[in-house]
Parts: sequence; C-alpha cells; structure tokens
Amino acid sequence: MFKKVLIANRGEIALRIIRACKELGIETVAVYSDADIESLHVAFADESVCIGPRQASESYLNIKNIISAAEIADVDAIHPGYGFLAENPHFAKVCEECGFEFIGPSSEHISLMGNKSKAKETMKNLGVPVVPGSEGAVKDKDEGLKIAEEIGFPVIIKASAGGGGKGMRVAHSELSFLKNFETAKNEAKSAFGNDEVYIEKFIEEPRHIEIQVFGDGAGDALHFFERECSIQRRHQKLLEEGPSPFLTERMREKMGKVSVDAVKGLGYKNAGTIEYLVDKYGNFYFMEMNTRIQVEHPVTEMITGVDLVQLQLKIAAGEPFDISQKDIKIIGHAVECRINAEDPDTFAPSPGKIEAYYAPGGFGVRVDSATYQDYIVLPYYDSMIAKMIVFGKNREEAVNRTKRSLDEFIVEGIKTTVSLHKRILANHAFIKGDVTTDFIDRYMRE
Amino acid sequence: MFKKVLIANRGEIALRIIRACKELGIETVAVYSDADIESLHVAFADESVCIGPRQASESYLNIKNIISAAEIADVDAIHPGYGFLAENPHFAKVCEECGFEFIGPSSEHISLMGNKSKAKETMKNLGVPVVPGSEGAVKDKDEGLKIAEEIGFPVIIKASAGGGGKGMRVAHSELSFLKNFETAKNEAKSAFGNDEVYIEKFIEEPRHIEIQVFGDGAGDALHFFERECSIQRRHQKLLEEGPSPFLTERMREKMGKVSVDAVKGLGYKNAGTIEYLVDKYGNFYFMEMNTRIQVEHPVTEMITGVDLVQLQLKIAAGEPFDISQKDIKIIGHAVECRINAEDPDTFAPSPGKIEAYYAPGGFGVRVDSATYQDYIVLPYYDSMIAKMIVFGKNREEAVNRTKRSLDEFIVEGIKTTVSLHKRILANHAFIKGDVTTDFIDRYMRE
Repeated sequence: MFKKVLIANRGEIALRIIRACKELGIETVAVYSDADIESLHVAFADESVCIGPRQASESYLNIKNIISAAEIADVDAIHPGYGFLAENPHFAKVCEECGFEFIGPSSEHISLMGNKSKAKETMKNLGVPVVPGSEGAVKDKDEGLKIAEEIGFPVIIKASAGGGGKGMRVAHSELSFLKNFETAKNEAKSAFGNDEVYIEKFIEEPRHIEIQVFGDGAGDALHFFERECSIQRRHQKLLEEGPSPFLTERMREKMGKVSVDAVKGLGYKNAGTIEYLVDKYGNFYFMEMNTRIQVEHPVTEMITGVDLVQLQLKIAAGEPFDISQKDIKIIGHAVECRINAEDPDTFAPSPGKIEAYYAPGGFGVRVDSATYQDYIVLPYYDSMIAKMIVFGKNREEAVNRTKRSLDEFIVEGIKTTVSLHKRILANHAFIKGDVTTDFIDRYMRE
Repeated sequence: MFKKVLIANRGEIALRIIRACKELGIETVAVYSDADIESLHVAFADESVCIGPRQASESYLNIKNIISAAEIADVDAIHPGYGFLAENPHFAKVCEECGFEFIGPSSEHISLMGNKSKAKETMKNLGVPVVPGSEGAVKDKDEGLKIAEEIGFPVIIKASAGGGGKGMRVAHSELSFLKNFETAKNEAKSAFGNDEVYIEKFIEEPRHIEIQVFGDGAGDALHFFERECSIQRRHQKLLEEGPSPFLTERMREKMGKVSVDAVKGLGYKNAGTIEYLVDKYGNFYFMEMNTRIQVEHPVTEMITGVDLVQLQLKIAAGEPFDISQKDIKIIGHAVECRINAEDPDTFAPSPGKIEAYYAPGGFGVRVDSATYQDYIVLPYYDSMIAKMIVFGKNREEAVNRTKRSLDEFIVEGIKTTVSLHKRILANHAFIKGDVTTDFIDRYMRE
C-alpha cells in the first residue's frame, strides 16, 4: 500500500479522501490556495502545501504547482477527487510521467470518455445501448423521415450546432415530423447560422440512473448497483438515492451486467460511473461515463457497506479486488441531499460567513462536510457545503429519517438548499418514487 | 401508534428519543429546566414545557411538574430516557395511574431490579448464573473455610458494612484464607465498627459484558447480542464496543440464551440490559439488570441495524415484535466513545462555553449530541456532551476509523475526554481486545 498520498482537491472531497487514507494508515498531503488556509482539509492532513492564489486556474488547476508539491512532499500517489483536474487526461499523464501513481483510470480512458461521440461509439461496440439516431447530420427531409421510421416515433430533431432548446423539435408521427423538420432547420439557421440537424430517439419521461463500476485494469470488473439521480437543477444533481425506486430486479441485473461487461471490455482501472437515461418503458441508453469518484458515491457506500475511496486506493496500489460480485448486496436504502450555499429558488450562489451551524446526527445519518460555525463560504469555488446521506432499512424509513434530519440542519448567515430539500421530500411524486429529470422544473417552481 | 409523546429528559438522549418519534410520525413534547431553554431538545421538539428551575430535584426529577406538563400537552405516553426518573418505580406507577403509557417496563419490574439482592435471587431462580458465595455474613472461620472450599479458590472476603476496598481480602488457598479472614475482620471492625464479613467467588480478570434484551410483556423476548463495557472510570463506562472481542461464538450464544430465557420468565416488557461479570475462563455471572435504554445502546443499533428506541415505542404502543431472533445478526463492529466535559486525567467536571466545535463525520461515523459551538455546558447535570459511535465491517476497521474520527473531534473552551480516548485507542492491550475492568487504572494512570 502507498505510504503517502497527495490530495489534489479541497473541501469535503479532500476530507473524504484524507479519511480513507488515515483509516488505511496512509500519510496525507493537502494542497491549498491562499484563500483556503483555514480549511479543514489543511488542518486534518499530515502535511500541507500552498499551491497558489485563490483563483482555481492558478492553484487547484495548476498542474505544475501540484506536481512540485508532490515532489517536495515525496508522495507515492495523487488522488484528484472530483472536479478540478479529476478528468484531465493531461494531468493523469503528467502524474505517471513524474512517477506518481494517479488514483484513477489511465489517461487514455479519461481521454476516450471525455470525447462524447467517441465514448458513445465505443460503448455501443461494447454492447451498451445508446440512444438510437442518425450518425451525424441528416441530408434532407427524406433521409430524416427514413431514420425516424427506423428508430420509431417519437423522435427529436436537434440542431447540430445547438444547445439550450433552440432548434429542437419533437415529432410523434410522420405528419408532425414533416412539419417540425423545417421549423427546426429554420430555427437552427437563425440561432446558430447553421441549419444542420440530426435525429435521435426521444426519451419519454427520462430518468437519470447511473451504475457505479470498478475495474482492476486487468479485465476484471465489479458493479455496485445504481443511483437514481433524476432530481437536478440546471443539469446538476441535487438529491440522489439508491436503489432506484423505478428499477425492477430484472432491470437492475441487466443494467449491472451490461455496465460491468463494458468495463471489462475496456480493461478499465479504478472507479467509474456509467450514466444512463432510462425511459418510462424501462429502456436504458448510455449518456456518458465519468472516470472518477462521484459526489454521490456515499449513497452506494451506505447501501452496500463498501468504502469506495478505500477501494480506489487499494486498486491504484495494485491490490486485487477484496470483494466479489456475489458479495455486493443492497442492504437498505440511502438518500443524499446536497446542501449548497445558494438561494433555494434562484440557485444564485450565497457565499459568506456561517453564523450558526448544526449538522444532524443520530442513527443512519452521515454528514460529509468541511464546514463549521464561523467558516466563510468562499465565492471562488463550488457552492456545495455539505452532503447529508441518510440510511434506512427501506425507502420509507430512509425518507422519514431524511425529513427529520433536514429539520435539524441549521445553517445561519447564508442561504442554503435545506428548505428546497424539505419541499422535495414533501412532494407526492417524490414520495411515490416517481421522479424524472424535469422534477425540479415541474414541481419546485412556483 | 402513539400520537404524542413527552420526553422526561434532556441532552442527547432527549434528542435521540425525539428523532425516533419523528421518524415514526409521533409528535413530541420536550420538558426543560430554566437553565436549558437554549437546548436543542427544546428547539427540535414540536412543543416544550418548562418544568422548574435548574436543580434537577426541582425539574427533571419533579414528578408532579412532569405529570402536569403531560396533562397540559395531552400526550399519550412518556419516555423517561436514562438517568433521572428512568428507574424510579414510583414515577412509572404515577404515569400509568394518570393514564400515560410509561415507555419502559412495569413499576414492579423496575422495583424488583432496583433491589440488588432480590434481583440476584430472582435471576438465580430463572437459571442465570450469579457469583457464588455465602448467603449473607459467615459465622466464623470454620464456616467461612467450608464455603470457600465449596465454591473453590480464589475467593474474596468482604466486609458486610464495607465499600471502597476496606476489609477486603483475596484468598487463593486454605492457608491464605485462614490468615486473611482475621485480617479482614479486624479491618472491617476498625473501618466500619462491624466485623461481619461474607465470602464470594473472586472473579479473575473480570470483564463487564452486557446483553441487550427486549420483552414484549407477554412472555416473548429477544436479545441483541452483547456490548463490551469493561473500560470504565470510577465505575462509569467510558468506551464501549460490540461485539466483545473476548467472547467465542459459543459463549455469545449461551449468554444470549440465558438472558432471553430470564426475560421470558420475568414476563418483562420493553428494553433492558443484563450486566454480567465475565472471568478469564469465560464464566459469566449476573451483576444487575438495568430496566431502561442504556447510554451505549447505539453500539447495538450499529451492529444489528435495528433502531432500539423505535422498538421501545412500538412495544410500549402494544405492537408485536416486527423482527425475530433469527433475523437479528451481527453485521459489523462498533465502538462508542463518550465525550465528557471533564479533565481527562482527574475526571473533574469541566463546564463552560464551547468556543469551537467540529464533530467528525464521513462513512461509518455517528454522533449523538445536543452540543454546538457557543453552547454552554452546564455544571448542574451529567458531563457527557457527545457520543461518537463508529462502525466498521470488522474490529480493525472500526478501531482505525475511531482513531481518525477522534483526531477530527474539535472541542475548544472546555476540557474533554477526547485525548484520553486517543490514548486508549493507541494502547496495545486495547488493540488486542484484551480489556478488563481495571484497564483505566492499569494503563491510563501515569
């Protein structure tokens, strides 16, 4: 096992990694920007090195300074956490070239999954279902209609240069396709100066469900079941749970198997997450693969009992899996609420000093946070200040425990998403487990 | 199920009970003394009633005021927590007479177990091993020797009027018995003005191991395995763990069976703990039965996954057990550290304002506490300010996780037992699981 690990991150994930290292007897080195000198990840690491000023580009994204810190501290390995340099293939490569084990997959796999169209192609070849559609732009109405009929209605017509809903049209029949095709092209032309459009199967009532996977880099792989992450604001997850109340046992098995086979096929190493869109019929389609530990990994830890960050360290150190697929079982239900320093209605950041702080505790409640009373939430970094992960023997118990824990969560001096989570937990659709990706827009907007 | 419950307690246990009630959809009523108006148990309950001034005798022990509060708030039941009125049979009786369900056993069972010699006799008749010895004082040297030979050496000769080690002598053979018998009598005479002595089997390298039990009041009972509580200061537990590293699977089964049979024989209702002294050969002897929830109940919750306070509420409300003995399994290992506001060397109380506070979190860490930064630890009540309960898949993982969690526990402004726990966790005998009731005196005194 490693003797010393540098954590190239800040906040709760840096603390999370320090904890895993300490529990395995590994020394830790924190890095920090000028602004983070009072942070707990600095206080709790064995050593710490300042890597630059508050701007992330000059510190947490500064590869040169981070590598220098690793050299000075003489570490064996570097853990990137999530965000910042975690999915930067160049950083992974530089780590390896400088003799530091990068705690994550190879730079080639990071690179491959960073290229969304290549990733989709690769996964398709490995037997993972992808959203059916045209390969690139369609020539004209006739070709478009032919493809639409092949993949079956409803389809969505999207501007190749698009984004943000412009030049996007759903067609439920041949008639509506013919009408919407021209409209989409015209909109694309006027919005992006390019009238190219492509066609994809339209996913009805989509859910975002992801599978936690691990590879050993030698062709073996494990999956740790799914997380339901449909509750999002601006494409950022807000509340995650596991297992998904939507999946049947059969779908769960199938998604796990497809995912683990792909990871084996890739020869992938370390932690990864395969994100899927799941339609109302239970069909699932590959969206992307994240080649790092996720924010919401504790959901999986709580429902399987496996420490995923410890497993990352063990795999990176060349140890074989110390658990087999048949021993990975779902032992209960977990809900994670992301407590962000932001306005719960507008999602505008709300940095500032925390005047009073009490994090809930008791049976089944886990809080991952580097926050404390008098801590100043900085405007330079991500607004998440705490993750509250609540476990129960079943969904009902986990949900009731989450409610009482939110009632106890006290953060004064700044605005947070605590009140939004309370509204989500009280929503009838949420209580039934009926959550799709439009949940926040549908129910949480007055 | 109850609609509304009054919690006749304060601090972390009041909060613990409020949490269980909320998770079951029960409304809660807190009671508080003048000094506790800023307490979290008051803040987190649905209603609260002041029951008197800061002196416990005038508030938390004031049966009349508590019953009045229950009447005003119109509750269905009263939970006494631990300490204060929890083992007062008169209080249990008054609750029932006034029409409030007392969440605990009958006043008769509280009364019976409160009388130590009656409790011992009763348990002996129910097949529970008790420490063998003379029934009361021995007439003379000859009778004493006869008894000593019957129960087998080593024996301990104790002053009937004694305490604190005076007039106490251990005899390992006939010869040493004859010599020590006179010495003990003389010491007893001069210390207590009474030379009566009695004889008991001397327990070598005693461990304090207790079994968590539950009865349904109708002759059915369950046990939830054991807690190892040998690490004590001044006969007060400091660190508890479960399962006991000393017990073999066979001993575990036997202690569980003996305990559960006794509870069935008693027709006991609700939670109880049977405390045993266990000698180095694995013999176990009844010490006493506590007729309430214990401080250290979270250890059992963590290793079995069962919420014991919820179970208390369900049993009190007349529900049958919702779990069977064969489904209660040990799923890992847990360690509880009691964080007391006291000098870690002298154990003198250290009340005052908490200037800075950070409670550890992350995977496997549970904190039960009503404490927060700026909270003033009051000198009028018990000095325990937090319980930190750490779970791991085995003892090694739990111990390593406890160590890292203690390193993160920040309490400034008052003295606490955090540093003492760190020393305990680093002790070679503790690491081997080799703990007896003299652990603190033996290893933690410079």
